[in-house]
Amino acid sequence: MTLTLTGRYYRMYPSFDNPLGHAEEELELDPARTGFLIVDAYGRGFDDEEEHPGLAGIYAPDPVVKEIVREHIVPAREAARQAGLPVVYLTNHLSPGLTERTEWRNLSMRTCDVDVLDAWREPNDILAFSKVIAPGDGEPLIRKQMYSGFYETTLDSTLRARDIRDLVVVGFDSRICLGNTVTEAMYRGYRVVVLRDCVRTFEYPETREGELANLLAIRYIESNVGYTATSAQFAAACARLAGG
Amino acid sequence: MTLTLTGRYYRMYPSFDNPLGHAEEELELDPARTGFLIVDAYGRGFDDEEEHPGLAGIYAPDPVVKEIVREHIVPAREAARQAGLPVVYLTNHLSPGLTERTEWRNLSMRTCDVDVLDAWREPNDILAFSKVIAPGDGEPLIRKQMYSGFYETTLDSTLRARDIRDLVVVGFDSRICLGNTVTEAMYRGYRVVVLRDCVRTFEYPETREGELANLLAIRYIESNVGYTATSAQFAAACARLAGG
Amino acid sequence: MTLTLTGRYYRMYPSFDNPLGHAEEELELDPARTGFLIVDAYGRGFDDEEEHPGLAGIYAPDPVVKEIVREHIVPAREAARQAGLPVVYLTNHLSPGLTERTEWRNLSMRTCDVDVLDAWREPNDILAFSKVIAPGDGEPLIRKQMYSGFYETTLDSTLRARDIRDLVVVGFDSRICLGNTVTEAMYRGYRVVVLRDCVRTFEYPETREGELANLLAIRYIESNVGYTATSAQFAAACARLAGG
Amino acid sequence: MTLTLTGRYYRMYPSFDNPLGHAEEELELDPARTGFLIVDAYGRGFDDEEEHPGLAGIYAPDPVVKEIVREHIVPAREAARQAGLPVVYLTNHLSPGLTERTEWRNLSMRTCDVDVLDAWREPNDILAFSKVIAPGDGEPLIRKQMYSGFYETTLDSTLRARDIRDLVVVGFDSRICLGNTVTEAMYRGYRVVVLRDCVRTFEYPETREGELANLLAIRYIESNVGYTATSAQFAAACARLAGG
Repeated sequence: MTLTLTGRYYRMYPSFDNPLGHAEEELELDPARTGFLIVDAYGRGFDDEEEHPGLAGIYAPDPVVKEIVREHIVPAREAARQAGLPVVYLTNHLSPGLTERTEWRNLSMRTCDVDVLDAWREPNDILAFSKVIAPGDGEPLIRKQMYSGFYETTLDSTLRARDIRDLVVVGFDSRICLGNTVTEAMYRGYRVVVLRDCVRTFEYPETREGELANLLAIRYIESNVGYTATSAQFAAACARLAGG
Repeated sequence: MTLTLTGRYYRMYPSFDNPLGHAEEELELDPARTGFLIVDAYGRGFDDEEEHPGLAGIYAPDPVVKEIVREHIVPAREAARQAGLPVVYLTNHLSPGLTERTEWRNLSMRTCDVDVLDAWREPNDILAFSKVIAPGDGEPLIRKQMYSGFYETTLDSTLRARDIRDLVVVGFDSRICLGNTVTEAMYRGYRVVVLRDCVRTFEYPETREGELANLLAIRYIESNVGYTATSAQFAAACARLAGG
Repeated sequence: MTLTLTGRYYRMYPSFDNPLGHAEEELELDPARTGFLIVDAYGRGFDDEEEHPGLAGIYAPDPVVKEIVREHIVPAREAARQAGLPVVYLTNHLSPGLTERTEWRNLSMRTCDVDVLDAWREPNDILAFSKVIAPGDGEPLIRKQMYSGFYETTLDSTLRARDIRDLVVVGFDSRICLGNTVTEAMYRGYRVVVLRDCVRTFEYPETREGELANLLAIRYIESNVGYTATSAQFAAACARLAGG
Repeated sequence: MTLTLTGRYYRMYPSFDNPLGHAEEELELDPARTGFLIVDAYGRGFDDEEEHPGLAGIYAPDPVVKEIVREHIVPAREAARQAGLPVVYLTNHLSPGLTERTEWRNLSMRTCDVDVLDAWREPNDILAFSKVIAPGDGEPLIRKQMYSGFYETTLDSTLRARDIRDLVVVGFDSRICLGNTVTEAMYRGYRVVVLRDCVRTFEYPETREGELANLLAIRYIESNVGYTATSAQFAAACARLAGG
């Protein structure tokens, strides 16, 4: 049995000045070799009616992100579970070797006003999972320090141990952690399908109109990494598989 | 002696809705531990008065890129050489293990209409260097297959063998190969300064006005990777070093 | 159809003082997911009746190694080819980024009296292939600098692009380059079978009697990495596959 | 100030049949760029007068190993601390992505009669630290799954964040986890000095006389990786530094 999903990509030819643009392809995913990867859906604030005073500044809860988690990612995860796909989570943590000389830590201080050596000490509300999206029993959670889930982590061996070749990916944010993770997944031969209603990045003043930062993050994936589809398409594909 | 360079970065705090924006910092680079990295400045077409019928479609010579190479990158490289910084080149090649099953090869077919198994066989005009920017004697050229210069290459050991800690980076394109390479450089503890007039990416129809794809590629570096400066600032810093 | 091969391993339990020792297991290899890997079978001197004045000192031709190449490795490779297994070669080269500060280069000077910055400049008789074992058309040759074939090379993507899961391995030497390569193959989930009559390492004065260095190199593989078999067993397995 | 240490290595030239053998070199280590790495000194049983019924079979406490930890490694660590060298620990753990298909897990079952999916679930006496050698406050502990401390771990970024270039290494066992870790350290440009009285491996029946497995593990390091010295030499070097 095959998971049949319409993947969208972007044609940059015949020239960058005049690209053909979007096209679609019927993808056939082998459910025995397909994984469902959730990137950085961490943080309190996705459950109902709780207060999280530790979440402020760039970590302040965003109602749009909350809706994406609850209304798009959680149903997609449920579909993946029903189809028997392994669900794997990536999350950030404070790695034991980090120091005041670590370039990424210094970058975070100057661009985010966050000293991860303090703010990311566990437990904290920033990195804790909300109940609604917390990993289930037996679902591996891979801790990373940098943007890519493949850098100095066990993600690749986790996927290999399940013989995974195709990856359906959701999470945050589309430009940074998810974007860099799927790029490196493609390097390693994984065929990637990002559910494009299950991702988001922040917008700069110059890009807010038209939400161009997120549009470009998705476009980059469609041009340079793999495919996109919607969570509804994915859920329907999983349902067909179960019904087949 | 120190190479003193004003680096620009971008402050995303206090909140994504209301970011403080650009700021500058005086960087002190140790010339004995700084390298000059040129990413993917390959391709015939940057020299004068030659015809290159093999360069068409997405590889067609672009006068803006040609000007960046000749008027910005080449002078910056000359400044780096005068200051005694090691110059390292990254380039693409057709790696021996690539097959018709390689995901990146299939991606290139559908999004670029290029089968690298044919088009990248050497020699070809796509990957050959123009004389103006070809590596000099003793300047290492590192071949890569994927976007990042760190994936399955000797780049990291090349930099370590020179005890390099800071990297001044130029080349193409700002979003894909250069962008992914500097991201991974930061993971590995390199402090990155991209010369922002020495980079470029292609624009989509939605981003052409305002050249927002390139703006965002630079903004991403300033927010999430390191610093930017201009080639004029870098050349002046190198001149001060020589004069000091 | 399945490639059926008897693999030998070593049981260290119930205790290191009293190990159970060797045991065998019938391995079923899927020919569509099995590769044949030849490690460092480079060097002139394996062909007939040629003189190679460039091969001296630690590179002096060794008649036992020559016999292993010609009488064991070449027939095993022929069996692999007949069975349709992809044949992949690893070899050493002088990588472009190496400097006088590279630790491995300095190690080679003090322990081998070889400055690879000179001795390994190509062309040379040390790293050239003898005709009898040179890669055939379309058989990928992966260049490495360090002992392991996985360090800063395209070996892993070469194997992934062929969907390889099991590896039959031959070459030199059992302790260093082959030993470190198969160790790292196991990390990455490859099931390894080394053909133990197709490997060898040099002996120290303390180990010459009983050829204990090679015995231990094979024992390490059988205890800590994977399986061993003989080239005759492998050839018979391939013949059964062809005959099946 | 410099840490001055006599390093021993092994000369394999002019030929493997007639090697010159051991030689020594005065090493000058910069204390600001030198780290002290303890590999796999885990396990209950190194403290006094405790019972550890969970330690049996291949994990049974070994009085020789206990003495090495208490009388050689602990004093060397104290000297390193006095000299201000960062102390970094490697240890094994059960990584979240491991499955019944993981090749290393299956290997452990057949060669060690240990199913790590059960035996390594924490807490357990196998992987817990004895008090005498447990990491001190602020000393990073890096968890690994495979033999090498560099595979899918944060070891390299931990060392880079401290600008470490030279590594003094102790622990277990000399052939497998320590041996593979120092091999990969050398690849990455670290100059390695193993304290040879602070390491050990198990012996096979064929190697017990003369403890040839451990001799060869040390010889491999001296021939192919770096240097060795004794813990007494290292402690004296540290004392000279403090006294200088």
